[in-house]
Amino acid sequence: MNEINRPDVLAEVDAAFDAYEHALVTNDVAMLDTLFFDSPHTLRYGATENLYGYDAIRAFRAARPGQGLAREITARVVTTYGDAFAVANIEFRRDGEPRIGRQSQTWVKMPDGWRVVSAHVSWMGA
Amino acid sequence: MNEINRPDVLAEVDAAFDAYEHALVTNDVAMLDTLFFDSPHTLRYGATENLYGYDAIRAFRAARPGQGLAREITARVVTTYGDAFAVANIEFRRDGEPRIGRQSQTWVKMPDGWRVVSAHVSWMGA
Repeated sequence: MNEINRPDVLAEVDAAFDAYEHALVTNDVAMLDTLFFDSPHTLRYGATENLYGYDAIRAFRAARPGQGLAREITARVVTTYGDAFAVANIEFRRDGEPRIGRQSQTWVKMPDGWRVVSAHVSWMGA
Repeated sequence: MNEINRPDVLAEVDAAFDAYEHALVTNDVAMLDTLFFDSPHTLRYGATENLYGYDAIRAFRAARPGQGLAREITARVVTTYGDAFAVANIEFRRDGEPRIGRQSQTWVKMPDGWRVVSAHVSWMGA
């Protein structure tokens, strides 16, 4: 049941992750909103904020400046479990920031597609 | 299929999470090792390290001092999806540390029980 990295499932999640990353660096807020699960259970820990529920995440994105979001992914691991669950983890670099960034997402396949149900972004440091 | 917070599933994951937390603050390394999925796919982003694979996580734990691990959980959200997948997120405080800690875990029900397949721990900050 929990077969790991079934190729067709992994391809789906890789594509969803790519869509998310593209939306992030281009600040395509509508697409970012679409890719998060619209639920009070969805949460996102950001570098400087803890957001509980889809509405809080959407409000944060709507208010965030659209500049400075570009980043280079330096490590990427997407792993799927069964046909409806996945985790996507990356390390990234951003210009002017000496620290390594890390982003973790948990994805669930919902009736209308893969959605992020939990996310955590941070800078590595002491 | 992805029913959220089915009571029996939530009870299982809450118990697994409680066991993890108890093992963490008592530095019960054997139990911590048991509760992480023994797989090269398992990963853990810590406050100061990025660990890929069960062996790297186990080696980190074996080398870590056992003092100073106590913490107070100030927010806790466990959410289950279906009968085999869950996310557990907490905020915590540690003595002498002014920043808010955050811990995110993704749990999968394996044949021998619930296991963490991905974890991310960080301090919230600028």
